Amino acid sequence: MSPKITGDLLRQLRQAMKNCKYFAEPIQAYIIPSGDAHQSEYIAPCDCRREFICGFNGSAGTAIVTEQYAAMWTDGRYFLQATQQMDNNWTLMKMGLKETPSQEDWLITVLPENSKVGVDPWIYAADQWKNMSTALTSAGHSLVAVQENLIDAVWTNRPKRPSTQLRTLGLEYTGVSWQDKITALRAKMTERKLSWFVATALDEIAWLFNLRGADIEYNPVFFAYTVVGMNTIRLFIDPNRLSDPALRDHLQLDSPSKPELSIQTFPYELVSSELQAICAALGPKDKMWICDKASCALTQVIPKSHRSPIPYTPLCLAKAVKNATEIQGMKMAHIKDAVALCELFAWLEKEIPKGTVTEISAADKAEEFRSQQKDFVGLSFPTISSVGPNGAIIHYRPLPETNRTLTENEVYLIDSGAQYVDGTTDVTRTVHFGTPSAFEKECFTYVLKGHIAVSAAVFPNGTKGHLLDSFARAALWESGLDYLHGTGHGVGCFLNVHEGPCGISYKTFADEPLEAGMIVSDEPGYYEDGSFGIRLENVVLVVPTKPKYNYRNRGSLTFEPLTLVPIQVKMMDTELLTQKERDWVNDYHRKCREVVGAELERQGRKEALEWLIRESQPIV
Amino acid sequence: MSPKITGDLLRQLRQAMKNCKYFAEPIQAYIIPSGDAHQSEYIAPCDCRREFICGFNGSAGTAIVTEQYAAMWTDGRYFLQATQQMDNNWTLMKMGLKETPSQEDWLITVLPENSKVGVDPWIYAADQWKNMSTALTSAGHSLVAVQENLIDAVWTNRPKRPSTQLRTLGLEYTGVSWQDKITALRAKMTERKLSWFVATALDEIAWLFNLRGADIEYNPVFFAYTVVGMNTIRLFIDPNRLSDPALRDHLQLDSPSKPELSIQTFPYELVSSELQAICAALGPKDKMWICDKASCALTQVIPKSHRSPIPYTPLCLAKAVKNATEIQGMKMAHIKDAVALCELFAWLEKEIPKGTVTEISAADKAEEFRSQQKDFVGLSFPTISSVGPNGAIIHYRPLPETNRTLTENEVYLIDSGAQYVDGTTDVTRTVHFGTPSAFEKECFTYVLKGHIAVSAAVFPNGTKGHLLDSFARAALWESGLDYLHGTGHGVGCFLNVHEGPCGISYKTFADEPLEAGMIVSDEPGYYEDGSFGIRLENVVLVVPTKPKYNYRNRGSLTFEPLTLVPIQVKMMDTELLTQKERDWVNDYHRKCREVVGAELERQGRKEALEWLIRESQPIV
Repeated sequence: MSPKITGDLLRQLRQAMKNCKYFAEPIQAYIIPSGDAHQSEYIAPCDCRREFICGFNGSAGTAIVTEQYAAMWTDGRYFLQATQQMDNNWTLMKMGLKETPSQEDWLITVLPENSKVGVDPWIYAADQWKNMSTALTSAGHSLVAVQENLIDAVWTNRPKRPSTQLRTLGLEYTGVSWQDKITALRAKMTERKLSWFVATALDEIAWLFNLRGADIEYNPVFFAYTVVGMNTIRLFIDPNRLSDPALRDHLQLDSPSKPELSIQTFPYELVSSELQAICAALGPKDKMWICDKASCALTQVIPKSHRSPIPYTPLCLAKAVKNATEIQGMKMAHIKDAVALCELFAWLEKEIPKGTVTEISAADKAEEFRSQQKDFVGLSFPTISSVGPNGAIIHYRPLPETNRTLTENEVYLIDSGAQYVDGTTDVTRTVHFGTPSAFEKECFTYVLKGHIAVSAAVFPNGTKGHLLDSFARAALWESGLDYLHGTGHGVGCFLNVHEGPCGISYKTFADEPLEAGMIVSDEPGYYEDGSFGIRLENVVLVVPTKPKYNYRNRGSLTFEPLTLVPIQVKMMDTELLTQKERDWVNDYHRKCREVVGAELERQGRKEALEWLIRESQPIV
Repeated sequence: MSPKITGDLLRQLRQAMKNCKYFAEPIQAYIIPSGDAHQSEYIAPCDCRREFICGFNGSAGTAIVTEQYAAMWTDGRYFLQATQQMDNNWTLMKMGLKETPSQEDWLITVLPENSKVGVDPWIYAADQWKNMSTALTSAGHSLVAVQENLIDAVWTNRPKRPSTQLRTLGLEYTGVSWQDKITALRAKMTERKLSWFVATALDEIAWLFNLRGADIEYNPVFFAYTVVGMNTIRLFIDPNRLSDPALRDHLQLDSPSKPELSIQTFPYELVSSELQAICAALGPKDKMWICDKASCALTQVIPKSHRSPIPYTPLCLAKAVKNATEIQGMKMAHIKDAVALCELFAWLEKEIPKGTVTEISAADKAEEFRSQQKDFVGLSFPTISSVGPNGAIIHYRPLPETNRTLTENEVYLIDSGAQYVDGTTDVTRTVHFGTPSAFEKECFTYVLKGHIAVSAAVFPNGTKGHLLDSFARAALWESGLDYLHGTGHGVGCFLNVHEGPCGISYKTFADEPLEAGMIVSDEPGYYEDGSFGIRLENVVLVVPTKPKYNYRNRGSLTFEPLTLVPIQVKMMDTELLTQKERDWVNDYHRKCREVVGAELERQGRKEALEWLIRESQPIV
C-alpha cells in the first residue's frame, strides 16, 4: 500500500483557506471530519472528503489542516493502516494514547493568536461544534462555519450523490407498520411535551418508514430527512425516487388512510428552507426534538428557544430494541450466514494446501457462499480477511498490494458479515490451518475467556454496556495484554452493522442501558503488531434470565449468541480454561451442530456439515 | 428512631420563600443541598441545613421544598435511614432507581408555569447551577440565587462556625514542604498558561499548607480559602487562629524565605471582595483556575472570560498520589488500626456471651482500643456498628433508640476508621459469633469473591476505577444479587476518609485514571433488608506490577491491601471459592499474621495475638 501524494492538494486547500470567495477572512485551520450530513459512519464516495485529502480510508478519523501542519486523528484500530496510507505531509495523531493531544489542545498549541478555524457546518455535529467552539474561544480563537465545503472546492471529478432504488419491507420482516411507528413516536413526543421531531440519521429514517436503499455501500439506507409533527409528516428525498408505484403504495402517497398519516414529500435539498418555514410558524411553547449529533447547520436553523436536543432520538432507542419478528429474522439470517461460513472453512481446508488461496480470494469465496443464501442482499461491511501480520491491522481490508496467501503457517482472521432481507450479520473467527504456536494459543485462549465472560455474564436490568467491558479484558490484563478497541457495538436488523445507542466499550458515552431485545456484538481481540491478530466475535441478543435470587425485583439479563459458527478448538490452550468455560464452549458447539447442522442437511451441503460436526466436538 | 416533626418549620420556610425581604419576588421552590461553601461531604453543625429542615442526617442528600411538596433525594446507602428520620411531610426520592425522577424533572412536573426556584449560591456548585439552570430555563422556569440562606432565616440557635486550633505537620509526615507544593502548583499553572488558582476545598488547603484542623468532626480540616498567583499567596482564615507562634513559624508569616513564598492573610469572610479586587486588576489574557465544583457564588465573582473551570484541581490530583513518606505513614496507621481491631474482636468474643455488648458499646470499645495507639487523633467517620437488620441500613449509625445487643444469633457488621497523625484508616468486617445461616454464608462468599476480584485485579496503567467496579459485582450478579453503592473511594492521608478524584464505582464521573501511589477502598457488600448486612472493606494501595507480558510498554497496576485484619473464615462457604481465591485469602491472612502479629507482640497484647493467630489459619 503506497501512501497518497498530497502535496499539491494541500497547497490548493491552503489557497482556498485564504480565499475570501469562501469566507470573508482567511482561515488559519480547516477541519475535515469523516462524516456526511447525516453523521453516518460509512459514507458515500461523494462524502469521502477526509480520505480525499489525506489518503486514509478507515471508517473513523478527522483531518485538520493549518497553514503549516496537516494532522489526522484516528483510533487504535487504524494506527497501522493510517501510517501506510498517508504521506509525510501528514502527522498521525493516535487517539487513546496518553501523549496524544486532543484536536482542541493541538490547535491551541499550533495556531497563531486570534486564529479562525473553519469547518463545514453540514458535516459537523452540533455537540462537536459546541465543544470545539468553547475550547477555541477560551484560547482566543474562533470556530467559523464555512458554507461551501473547501474540499469540494479543490476536488475535481467529485462523484455524484447516489439515488438508488428503494425496497419496501412488509410486516413479515418489520413486525410493525411505519404508521404504527409514527404513532408510537408521537406518543413519545406527547409524553415529553414536544410538538416536532427532526430525524437526520439515515438508518432511523429507513427504519421508521420500513424502507431500504443502497445509497451507501454495505448500509441499506437512502439519503433523506424527515420532520414529524403531531399532524404532519414531511419526507425530504430525491423526487425521482418517488415514481415507483410499489413505493407510492407503501407510503400511501396517493391515498393516505388518515390525514395525520399523510406524507408530504419535498426534494432532499429543501430540508433547511422548509425547516426554517416550520420554525417561523412555531408557537412560543412549541419545542422541536433533534439529536445533538445532528449537523450543526440543521440544528442552528431551529431557534435555541424551540430546540430540545437529545443524545439519542426516540427512533434510535426504539430501533435498538428488536421486536419478535425482527429477532426471528436475525436468527434466520445468522443460521444462513453460519451455513456460508461452514462452507468457507471446509473449502479453505481443502484449498489452502494448494497454495492458491489469498486474503482476497478467500473473502470473495465467503461472499460467494453467502450470496447463495436466501434473501442475500450484499455484505454488511468490507470483509477483513487477514493473514499473519495483516491480522494485527485491526480494520484491515486486503488490497492487491498487501494480499497474502493463506498457508498452514500463519494465523488467519476473517471478520465478515452480510445483509439479508431478514437480518444483518457480523462474525469474526480466527483459525490456524497448521499448528499454532504456544503464544498464539495462549493469546487466543485469553481472548476466548474474555468473549465467554461477556457472553455468559448475568447482570441486572438497567446495566449499561460499559460496565461489562472489563469482563472481556480481565484475562488479557492479568497477563499484561489488552486490545485498543471496544468490545461490542449495537447491530441493526437489515440495517447498519454498527448502531447505537447501546454497546460494550470502555468509552462511556453513547451508552444506554441494555434491554431485552437489544442486539450487540461481543468481540474481544489481541493484536501482536507485525505478527498476528486474534478476534472472536459473535452477535448476541440480550435476553432475560432468572438466576437463583431476584434482588429488589430488578430482574436479570444475559446474552444469547445469534452467531452459530464453531470456535476453533485447535487454537485453544484448554488447560487455561476453567470447567465453566469448557462447559460454555461445549454448549455453544452443541447448539451450532444442532441448529446449523439441520440447515446444512436441509440444503444438502455435505462437506460443510462434516466440517461442522468435526469442529463442534466437545472438549474435555 | 422517630422522625423529626417538620410541619412548623416548613410553614416558616414557605413564608420566607414568599417574603420579599429575601428575594425581590416570591419563589416557588427552594433547594437545600447538603454541602457547605466548600462542597465538603462532612459538614460542621452550622452547615447542617438539610438535616435541620427534614431530619435526615446522612452524608448525602438534597431537599427541595415547593409551596405544596417537600422531597428529599438520596442514594441507596440511605433509603432506610431516610425513611426513618423524615416525617410524612417529606417524600423520599430514591436515587439510582429507574422510576425516580431527577430533581430537574421533578421540579418541572410539579411547578406552576414560570416558576422561580431559589438556592443559596454559596452552597451550590457552579456545575450544579449550570445543569439545573439549563433544565429549568428550557421548561420556562428560572433558577435564582437567594443571597441570604432561607434555612438560616428560620433556624433559631444556629451554631457558630468552628475555629479550632491548627496543627502543623513536619516533613516526617508530609514528605514535601508546603513551599515545594506551591512551587509544583505554579509549575502546573505555567504549563497550562494560567496566572491564578483559587482553592476552595478544605482538604486541598490543609494538604497544601501541611496544616490540619478540627473544624469538621472526623475530617481534620479548617475553614479557609486560598488564592495563589505566580508571585503571591493569599490565605483567607479566621485571624484569631494566626496568633499561634508555631503556626506563624510554619507558614513563615513573619520572615518569608522568598517574596513569592510570602503568605498574605485575610479574614475568611473577605474572600469574595478580595477575589473581586484581584479580578479587577487582571490583564486581558490572565486566566484563573477554579474547580467547577466550587461554589457558584465564588465562581461567578470571576468574569467568564478569565475563568478556566476544571473538574479536578491540580491539588486534588497531587494529593491523591501519595509520596513515599505518606505511604509509609498510611502503612503504619493501618497496622496500629489492625491491632485495635484484633483487640476488639478478641474482646467481643469474650463479652458477647454475657449479653451486655451493644452496637454502641462495641463502637465505643473500638474507639477506646484505637485511642490507645500512638498518634491517634480521632475517628475518621461515625462508626457503623450494626447487628442483624440494622446491618442492612448501609450508613447506619447506632442511636440509643435503635441500639441492638450483639448476640451469637445475628450477623455483626462494623465499618470504622480513625485519624492518626501518620494516616487515615477505614475498614469493614462482617462477622458472626455463633453459626451463620447458609444464606448468610453464601452472600458473604459472593461479596468476598467480589472483594478479591478487585483487590487481585491486574489492569493497565491509565485505567479508570469505574472499569473495575463490575469485577466486584460479577459473583453477586450471577446469583441475581447486587448492592446499591459504589465499590470504593479515594482515602486521604490524615485527611478526609473520602476524597477524589479516583474511586471504583459504576458512576463514571469524578474518575481520574488510577496511578501508582493512589489509595482507595475496596468494599463490596450485600444487604438483605430487614435481616442482615454484609460488607468487606480494605483500604488498598495502587502499586505497579509486572505480569508475564507488557503490551505496548504501558505497564500494569494492581492493589496492595493496607488494611490487615483477618476476614472471618466462619462466614465463608469455602466450596464456592476457586483455588485462586483460597490462595488469596491464605496469602492475605499470612500477611496479617506476620505484620500485625509482630506489632501485637511488641505491644504485648497477648489475647489479641492469640485471636489473630487463630483467625488467620489457612483454609484448605
